[in-house]
Amino acid sequence: MKEIRQPGAHSYVFSRYLEPIATVNPGETVAIYTRDAFEDRVTKDTDIPSKILGNYLNPQTGPIFVEGAEPGDTLAVHIMDIEPTRDWAVSAHLPNFGGLTATNTTRTLNEPLPEKVFIYKLEDNELTYNKRLKFPWRPFLGTIGTAPELEAISALTPADHGGNMDVPDTKPGNTVYLPVRVPGAYFFTGDCHAGQGDGELCGVALEITAKVTLKFELIKGKAIKWPRIESSTELMVVGSARPMEDAARIAYAELIDWMVELGWDQWEAYQALTQIGKLHVGNMVDTYYSLVAKIDKKYALVQD
Amino acid sequence: MKEIRQPGAHSYVFSRYLEPIATVNPGETVAIYTRDAFEDRVTKDTDIPSKILGNYLNPQTGPIFVEGAEPGDTLAVHIMDIEPTRDWAVSAHLPNFGGLTATNTTRTLNEPLPEKVFIYKLEDNELTYNKRLKFPWRPFLGTIGTAPELEAISALTPADHGGNMDVPDTKPGNTVYLPVRVPGAYFFTGDCHAGQGDGELCGVALEITAKVTLKFELIKGKAIKWPRIESSTELMVVGSARPMEDAARIAYAELIDWMVELGWDQWEAYQALTQIGKLHVGNMVDTYYSLVAKIDKKYALVQD
Amino acid sequence: MKEIRQPGAHSYVFSRYLEPIATVNPGETVAIYTRDAFEDRVTKDTDIPSKILGNYLNPQTGPIFVEGAEPGDTLAVHIMDIEPTRDWAVSAHLPNFGGLTATNTTRTLNEPLPEKVFIYKLEDNELTYNKRLKFPWRPFLGTIGTAPELEAISALTPADHGGNMDVPDTKPGNTVYLPVRVPGAYFFTGDCHAGQGDGELCGVALEITAKVTLKFELIKGKAIKWPRIESSTELMVVGSARPMEDAARIAYAELIDWMVELGWDQWEAYQALTQIGKLHVGNMVDTYYSLVAKIDKKYALVQD
Amino acid sequence: MKEIRQPGAHSYVFSRYLEPIATVNPGETVAIYTRDAFEDRVTKDTDIPSKILGNYLNPQTGPIFVEGAEPGDTLAVHIMDIEPTRDWAVSAHLPNFGGLTATNTTRTLNEPLPEKVFIYKLEDNELTYNKRLKFPWRPFLGTIGTAPELEAISALTPADHGGNMDVPDTKPGNTVYLPVRVPGAYFFTGDCHAGQGDGELCGVALEITAKVTLKFELIKGKAIKWPRIESSTELMVVGSARPMEDAARIAYAELIDWMVELGWDQWEAYQALTQIGKLHVGNMVDTYYSLVAKIDKKYALVQD
Repeated sequence: MKEIRQPGAHSYVFSRYLEPIATVNPGETVAIYTRDAFEDRVTKDTDIPSKILGNYLNPQTGPIFVEGAEPGDTLAVHIMDIEPTRDWAVSAHLPNFGGLTATNTTRTLNEPLPEKVFIYKLEDNELTYNKRLKFPWRPFLGTIGTAPELEAISALTPADHGGNMDVPDTKPGNTVYLPVRVPGAYFFTGDCHAGQGDGELCGVALEITAKVTLKFELIKGKAIKWPRIESSTELMVVGSARPMEDAARIAYAELIDWMVELGWDQWEAYQALTQIGKLHVGNMVDTYYSLVAKIDKKYALVQD
Repeated sequence: MKEIRQPGAHSYVFSRYLEPIATVNPGETVAIYTRDAFEDRVTKDTDIPSKILGNYLNPQTGPIFVEGAEPGDTLAVHIMDIEPTRDWAVSAHLPNFGGLTATNTTRTLNEPLPEKVFIYKLEDNELTYNKRLKFPWRPFLGTIGTAPELEAISALTPADHGGNMDVPDTKPGNTVYLPVRVPGAYFFTGDCHAGQGDGELCGVALEITAKVTLKFELIKGKAIKWPRIESSTELMVVGSARPMEDAARIAYAELIDWMVELGWDQWEAYQALTQIGKLHVGNMVDTYYSLVAKIDKKYALVQD
Repeated sequence: MKEIRQPGAHSYVFSRYLEPIATVNPGETVAIYTRDAFEDRVTKDTDIPSKILGNYLNPQTGPIFVEGAEPGDTLAVHIMDIEPTRDWAVSAHLPNFGGLTATNTTRTLNEPLPEKVFIYKLEDNELTYNKRLKFPWRPFLGTIGTAPELEAISALTPADHGGNMDVPDTKPGNTVYLPVRVPGAYFFTGDCHAGQGDGELCGVALEITAKVTLKFELIKGKAIKWPRIESSTELMVVGSARPMEDAARIAYAELIDWMVELGWDQWEAYQALTQIGKLHVGNMVDTYYSLVAKIDKKYALVQD
Repeated sequence: MKEIRQPGAHSYVFSRYLEPIATVNPGETVAIYTRDAFEDRVTKDTDIPSKILGNYLNPQTGPIFVEGAEPGDTLAVHIMDIEPTRDWAVSAHLPNFGGLTATNTTRTLNEPLPEKVFIYKLEDNELTYNKRLKFPWRPFLGTIGTAPELEAISALTPADHGGNMDVPDTKPGNTVYLPVRVPGAYFFTGDCHAGQGDGELCGVALEITAKVTLKFELIKGKAIKWPRIESSTELMVVGSARPMEDAARIAYAELIDWMVELGWDQWEAYQALTQIGKLHVGNMVDTYYSLVAKIDKKYALVQD
């Protein structure tokens, strides 16, 4: 199996203006190595992130060129496995970043929150900081996406290309569908989390370095507007926007579109999601917030 | 067991300015009869709601006076049972109301959505409109709350008194904690749903009339700021506000406060919710949107 | 001229559930005395507002019963004069209240802002705290409105009944149009400001006590949905909501409706406001934010 | 005077990844030719924009390389003159774009607004469509900005680099200060408006082609975070974000920072803007909304 490591500097934008670091073929399974969101710089409880961190966060591995991918296609990425490449994870409370703090856009005159680093030991599928802060290993890809047609988008931003969605549903066993907007798709991933609650409240999940096993497939001639996820039991769409209600509207509206593709009448799909849809918050901390709308396949795939 | 039916007109506000219709004692279990959110006026698929509905929606049964309740207490309401009092439920797509439509506040110049009524048959714990629109019986109280100190709040509005939260977690088996802000608490409930997805997307769940069995208890001298819910496995807080991120912030901030009451350090609680909290959308259609933040008791109740 | 003073406690809600304190006739001009938003409790720079203030803020004078007013009418209030009844005004930075701070809804874990009181001397039409903080006398009514049909709304809240709009356009020389929703209209006013910038940034303008001269007129059988203001040169609508874009949408959509009443085609009105409309922020600190949309009468009243 | 015309295709992103089309020296005055936001494609009232327009809108002239500009400097752009290069302007109501319509982010299921084109005749400093739709010539630059450090940002987006702010304050006589984030600054401008109301309500102002005369100066070693504007009488900051309150917060918080640079105490600046600040809406239609906070120099520049 091909192993892909970033040669030189990692990427801090989802961008077609970068040189591809590797090529994959449709049908191919590869292992990709990722750094953590802090560039592996925060390593002990006494570190002060704001003094240690560089100008950019959330380094991505990529771009990876997908042979044969053309604008208007959809890239299907099967997440086969996520293995940690170290035995600890890090979280931290940062100044002006997070869900219960003033930020650079929700600007206030309040003093920033105190910084605090949490180094968790990873052992026996459990992450332990202390007796209360002890959580199971539930790994997923915080960031996964393709390059936009013209823009170069910060690796901190989730949008319709995927990116920094921070939704726990991009996990092993699930398939992520991404729009192809440039020849070769220009795939990026990174920011693996050993686990995370809904919302990623303080802004920093259980950040790890990882080896990620992905299988790529191409759906030719089928375009999607926003990232979709499929599990064995559910269909999902991720909407990212602010205010949060716009992320919710996008997620549900796109899920209706998906159901219409599957044969539903639009108004019956609207009605079905009213009664049986699921909607949870992925992140409420990034430059856009990400919500995941879901429907159980048991309802979505009913045959006439 | 005492049965409480509304004598005369139902209530359309959560208000201390109304006369109590009944009295309950702490420790008492009572059955309360509720109308549906449309005042039982929409009964067939060919009805046009905007022509049939009155000026007010969401009739409440109440106020119910709780003996001994004083401002600064907390009212604990155990939801014992919800039984339907008819064999059908109704949903509808309304003009200018719902999650994927312009509304009276998100004002636009677009034409309103077409109206459409869905009458579901309730049989064998299943609600059936057609082959695709067929959902299990998952009843809960759409609206539950107490009277504010000075304000009289519309029955369509969820806020820190509870009210029209439309969260599927106010269901049999769970306990809802509500603030007491006037002597006697002035409890109201109504708007039973036979089931609902997250967000109540079109604005109208599976609306039913019901007989609701509740047990009331009083926690003297303990004040809460926002409604809390407890299940056998989870602690939850409901935040209601707009934009949606404010509802999320309230829900998680109040859950941190609850954890601090249980012995947590504030910053560790913030950290714990980041890694293991849950956050889903109750409604994205009412005058304020309601989100539910949760933590599993397994994590919340760790003993030192 | 009749003088109206609040007998006993002032009102903290816009409510039909209160007893009218006075009656006015259409066509009548009266003088109304108002307290300041702090109930006149903060009087010196060394005061600490959070220790001095009561549970309720923004005391209103009212309700005032308008003879002959019926639901469906419009109440026209001509603001003839605002005279200060003391020679100083007060502003203050408060914890968890204001435009550049976390609040009770935009909840964060940041420490609250430091409190600070500013007592301004009012002399020669100028308000002076020090050399930099020295502003002209530009008085207006912070709060003006009528009672809702069923609700009782906090005096801190602006909405479609008027209320705590905090827009500098409710000033002498202008006419405020308010909806009548209960017999007698139940008019309230208070919260006079000796001056204020757009947004009322810290949450507290130049608060004064005042004698307000108002002339009341009734427009029978004409209902309006949101407060309107007319000056000698402009037509204005105040929209109040959150997020702020909804306040903007309401204000402009209602102004289009007003223009259609004046003979405009809806789409041409939309086009005209695009090119010549004005939109400024009244407050970004209250429970809802208030924006004022305007059009110059020179454009609005063109005759065919 | 040097004249700058775009050779070949215009730019649709603010990006360092494009080749500079011209170079200017600090102190130099140049004339720049701009296309209209529709790429000059919509020319008559019967055109249907959605059928005529290309994939990209808002073509920019640039990037223009500013000699000696280095990251950390500020670029001062004096707007000397805007001359129309044709005798008509165009506005239009578009589907899913504008302030009173569902959009691609505020997604709904409503039918889109009807399209309508307005061709205005420009004559004697007046733009005339018909008797009612007749407005004065008040030209300004809809879009002006520099390239970000790593990102390439759509020409439809306003942010901290400037971009598509659509604020009527970027007009002749005023100076716009922009951050320099890449060597040479990479300046872009375009999207001239013959006039516009606050909010640019329908999303399309009075769009023209123009010859723009700008004088460039460099302030070495002084960084700013957001665009600033200076007129003969006012200091202004433009904040762009969603929800709209975040744009307001950014604009006022940055204006406080500017005042602190001028010698103010932060808390007195907060107080001053509360009492005398101005805050109006530039656009409520682009991907971020832009608000302009202002203070009169009479207050801002008081000497101790």
